[in-house]
Amino acid sequence: MLYEINEKALKLESEGKKIIRLNLGDPDLATAPEIVEAAYSAMKAGKTKYSSSYGENNLRQKLAERHSVKAENVVITPGSKWGIFATMFLMMKGGGNVIIPTPYWTAYDLIAKSLGAQTKLLRTELENDWKVDLATLENMIDKDTRMIILNNPNNPTSKIMDAKTLDGIVEIANRKGVTILSDEVYGTIAFTKTKSILEYNGGHKHILTTGFSKTFSMTGWRIGYIIANKMFVDNITKLNQITINNVPVFIQEAALRALEMQKQLSTKIKEEYEERAKIASKTLAKAGFKFSKPEAPFYVFPKLDGLDSEKFTLDLLDKGVAVAPGTAFGDYREHFRISLTAPSEEIKVALDKISEAV
Amino acid sequence: MLYEINEKALKLESEGKKIIRLNLGDPDLATAPEIVEAAYSAMKAGKTKYSSSYGENNLRQKLAERHSVKAENVVITPGSKWGIFATMFLMMKGGGNVIIPTPYWTAYDLIAKSLGAQTKLLRTELENDWKVDLATLENMIDKDTRMIILNNPNNPTSKIMDAKTLDGIVEIANRKGVTILSDEVYGTIAFTKTKSILEYNGGHKHILTTGFSKTFSMTGWRIGYIIANKMFVDNITKLNQITINNVPVFIQEAALRALEMQKQLSTKIKEEYEERAKIASKTLAKAGFKFSKPEAPFYVFPKLDGLDSEKFTLDLLDKGVAVAPGTAFGDYREHFRISLTAPSEEIKVALDKISEAV
Repeated sequence: MLYEINEKALKLESEGKKIIRLNLGDPDLATAPEIVEAAYSAMKAGKTKYSSSYGENNLRQKLAERHSVKAENVVITPGSKWGIFATMFLMMKGGGNVIIPTPYWTAYDLIAKSLGAQTKLLRTELENDWKVDLATLENMIDKDTRMIILNNPNNPTSKIMDAKTLDGIVEIANRKGVTILSDEVYGTIAFTKTKSILEYNGGHKHILTTGFSKTFSMTGWRIGYIIANKMFVDNITKLNQITINNVPVFIQEAALRALEMQKQLSTKIKEEYEERAKIASKTLAKAGFKFSKPEAPFYVFPKLDGLDSEKFTLDLLDKGVAVAPGTAFGDYREHFRISLTAPSEEIKVALDKISEAV
Repeated sequence: MLYEINEKALKLESEGKKIIRLNLGDPDLATAPEIVEAAYSAMKAGKTKYSSSYGENNLRQKLAERHSVKAENVVITPGSKWGIFATMFLMMKGGGNVIIPTPYWTAYDLIAKSLGAQTKLLRTELENDWKVDLATLENMIDKDTRMIILNNPNNPTSKIMDAKTLDGIVEIANRKGVTILSDEVYGTIAFTKTKSILEYNGGHKHILTTGFSKTFSMTGWRIGYIIANKMFVDNITKLNQITINNVPVFIQEAALRALEMQKQLSTKIKEEYEERAKIASKTLAKAGFKFSKPEAPFYVFPKLDGLDSEKFTLDLLDKGVAVAPGTAFGDYREHFRISLTAPSEEIKVALDKISEAV
């Protein structure tokens, strides 16, 4: 229902209605002008041709340095979502199952289903601080399990996985011979240090997907990357060759400029969103919602006992506020997701409407 | 082998070697500055956010007018290649077969195989003016045939399908209940009028894929579109939502500007490439090659009896000229494909090297 809400919000806006859009992880902050200028310079320099399906060498090299891997372990993708689809396309095609802790980002499940793969959902609960139970995970793995998807920090809870749990999951995956796909798109801008799957990746068995969207307010630019072993990177590249071909080179140049500005930009994003998380937490607590404190941008995933969040979301949209129902993230009907991706004043208005609506 | 040659050519260039690249359909003409400026303006105006997986309404509307369909029949894709992959993903997933006349664009076959579908190749020959034999086509269709792919004008032959043959193919497809995917990416810039599949599409059963790459020298921008019935467009959009999400809005704005300049730009491309085709035809005929006269940009597909085109292509690459071996387009070992996508002077140098090499 996540995408339906978005298309409906866009439609209402196109009809002239004012919608405060807190339904997507699309930061309201503009892309930095230096990044726009880098793209423009590249376009003017004629970087508007077909190019390598691996991505540009200079960008791969720079990313490799950041992650302490080799350039051959990096492939550029049109968004981290494409990285996830492409990874699952190669690994899940024709069946098998994938284990996904919930609440989860909707796309994992939709992608798996589009590929004819089965999803096995591992429920976590607000009441248990969203912890993955290791014994349950181990029991869920069977001979057809090809992959575990981690989203760390998590969308929609903005929770960071504690190091002990992550250690445990990797230990089980290694022992059982299951690949971990770790979606760390919120990792760089988490409010506290988040452990990456690459820290365990001696054998390059596991796969990292991430992107520029969240860290650099570049959602609409569609650029991300995968880090994996060389053979897997080569296979993703072959898939790129028959699908998207390449990310526009001028967009890759923009991403390169973004990386040069990373410290400055990510600090700004973190500060801004930590402030917004505080505002939201205060209002939501006052209105009687239960939730875990966000440890990363951009979401809060409040719960109200007895809430029908699909009805709630549609009613709220008519009142000019778009959020996402909990059912879009698994079996979480009493929850809904607020993206704190609007200016603070709008967030305050929206939070008041949310408080009134319940 | 098409993509391997390209990656090798890129590598040689990155090592400082001068390569005349006639291996890809990537026009050497630069994207018009007005198109670059349109993208830049859109970026500066903040059109750098997530947007609809259908594509922007204004662009869909404009394309609908051009093709005499409704906006609901148009979905924007990151390149026409994505349009083809997405169409085949929805139609061929899990099996069935697709009939493809050869010589064909490599990607069709690779995409089908990546989806676990079977390809049935319908051979056409230079000696028979590349005509599809209708009786052979009809006999190839069986209960598992889901699709026929037409590429009109054709890559690699630059041949336009005569109206009578196209009429016959559509009649057979309609009678047998098989969908035609018509890739018309070279259609707008053909040297003579080319009949579109949409002219037969009363019931919107058949599917058109095309893009901005060739008509507007925008290969590296990655933007194309599909025209189909509303239900199919909705399903492609759902696939976009879990893969590429959307084509960057600033790229869609650039495409909109391109459409406004279509007459001027496509006339220029046609004239330039018709001139190049003449130059190439003259030299190739003199050197003893057989080929059909190009009726559209960008290719010539010459034949030399007894030629091993894979060996020939690799040898030629070492001499600084990249072309594509005939085997990349089906069982055409004695052919190779020249893309006339370099300035005329370079093409002349390359043609001389090609003539010497045989």
